[in-house]
Amino acid sequence: MTFIGIEAGGTKFVCGAGTGPDDLADVTTFPTTTPEETLAWTRDYVTAHAGGLRAIGVASFGPLDLDPTSATYGYITSTPKPGWTFTDALGPLRAAADVPIGFDTDVNGAALAESRWGAATDVASCVYVTVGTGIGGGGVLDGRLLHGLSHPEMGHLTVRREPGDDFTGTCAYHGDCLEGMASGPAIATRWGKPGQQLTGSHLAAAVDLEAAYLAQMAAAMAYLLSPHRLVFGGGVMHLDGLLDAVRARTVDLLNGYIDVPAVTEQIDHYIVRPALGDHAGLLGAIALAADANP
Amino acid sequence: MTFIGIEAGGTKFVCGAGTGPDDLADVTTFPTTTPEETLAWTRDYVTAHAGGLRAIGVASFGPLDLDPTSATYGYITSTPKPGWTFTDALGPLRAAADVPIGFDTDVNGAALAESRWGAATDVASCVYVTVGTGIGGGGVLDGRLLHGLSHPEMGHLTVRREPGDDFTGTCAYHGDCLEGMASGPAIATRWGKPGQQLTGSHLAAAVDLEAAYLAQMAAAMAYLLSPHRLVFGGGVMHLDGLLDAVRARTVDLLNGYIDVPAVTEQIDHYIVRPALGDHAGLLGAIALAADANP
Repeated sequence: MTFIGIEAGGTKFVCGAGTGPDDLADVTTFPTTTPEETLAWTRDYVTAHAGGLRAIGVASFGPLDLDPTSATYGYITSTPKPGWTFTDALGPLRAAADVPIGFDTDVNGAALAESRWGAATDVASCVYVTVGTGIGGGGVLDGRLLHGLSHPEMGHLTVRREPGDDFTGTCAYHGDCLEGMASGPAIATRWGKPGQQLTGSHLAAAVDLEAAYLAQMAAAMAYLLSPHRLVFGGGVMHLDGLLDAVRARTVDLLNGYIDVPAVTEQIDHYIVRPALGDHAGLLGAIALAADANP
Repeated sequence: MTFIGIEAGGTKFVCGAGTGPDDLADVTTFPTTTPEETLAWTRDYVTAHAGGLRAIGVASFGPLDLDPTSATYGYITSTPKPGWTFTDALGPLRAAADVPIGFDTDVNGAALAESRWGAATDVASCVYVTVGTGIGGGGVLDGRLLHGLSHPEMGHLTVRREPGDDFTGTCAYHGDCLEGMASGPAIATRWGKPGQQLTGSHLAAAVDLEAAYLAQMAAAMAYLLSPHRLVFGGGVMHLDGLLDAVRARTVDLLNGYIDVPAVTEQIDHYIVRPALGDHAGLLGAIALAADANP
């Protein structure tokens, strides 16, 4: 059991042991209840798999304190999730096993996993975006996760409204930022039902709006970060035709300014789906464990 | 003459020899005329300073081909500047001296120089933005310049229009992107005179609009890149009150979501002016030379 990965999500925690996609055992899912109960499960999982353990990786919903010099390093910080504000995610694990612990956002973990084993193994940098209950993104540049003052919070980008769109947006902080206009809850609020129940002209209109806003994010990443690949995952990306629509709108928006063939001629290879499927989050945590292992 | 730096700008080229801000000699400026004439001057400068030379750095206007595996590495590529499209900027220098040559965008060079000697020496990452004839940005993360598929083109970010602003924008590619709405030429077109000639209510209105659009860029960087510091330079930033207005609008726009004291409590240290003044571009080139020296 070289590594343990813990994917800490807002609705469920997933634990697994192994070294990668072809070596992943004892995958176990817990519902996210109280911090005490949920973290006790992760602690017990570690205790049960402590033999030969070399490192643990935790890929968590955020925001997180990732500053190793901070007194609250390893905490989930100002999350709106009830009961979880300023939760020490790593303390219970440290008590269970004296091994290095890698800790990062779920989306940075997924970016690392896609870069190592998935949709971006052939390029030096990628950004992973998830479009679901929220919108978030993580990045890997030359094998290193994107960090600075804090971790990225890509979902809250200011977007330009599509003509005629007067939806107020669902973001508690910003109203009509990208997440407020294009997350799963935004679709559900806008149309009165979840995206996967939309059909016909409503589906077409929803896909068109989603593509318009997500293309602004793709273009912003191309302008500010210039990654080699953009990986778009999350439940909303399963809307029929959305990925192709995002590709087309991104090309339109860039309008030839990023004049490299990867964008102008091979957009289908520039904006892609994740390759690791349901285990991307857990594999992100395994990758964080591997990188924490000295 | 350890290093030669060449700042290649759209209106002038500046050459200098030395190792940093306290050791900079023979600073020489040429007007940017034809590529042949201008690059011959740089070649002659190198020839005249070849004794003891260890490396050359070129910090250039772009777009540039920075892919070392490309046949056109070292070229200024699809620039709209007449006569300069697909110009080999390094060829004449290679002919003059057999030393390593560092090559990057002017703004990446400036970011590196500010990070090494200027306004961001105390932090691990920074973004340098210039707001002038165009708008551009470069970044340093953990001492490394921000590169990916290409270099960043930060000025072309899609921005949300301010209410009541019906200006069409000046960007040849995008019309009303950030550069189209907030560059020096945008101000001049909007008001019929350059920003530095504006007074009274026109100045106040111009500063307000500039701040609104530049704050969107600052917020986008905080969300996507999370740098430790944003350095705003360029002629437009000399408008009276603009830097403070950008700070205030950025705090408003983030609305507490990036919940770190550096942003919420110390915005005056988060968004700052360059510290290297008129020599920032040249020092960027010197820094590129130093980094090219093995």
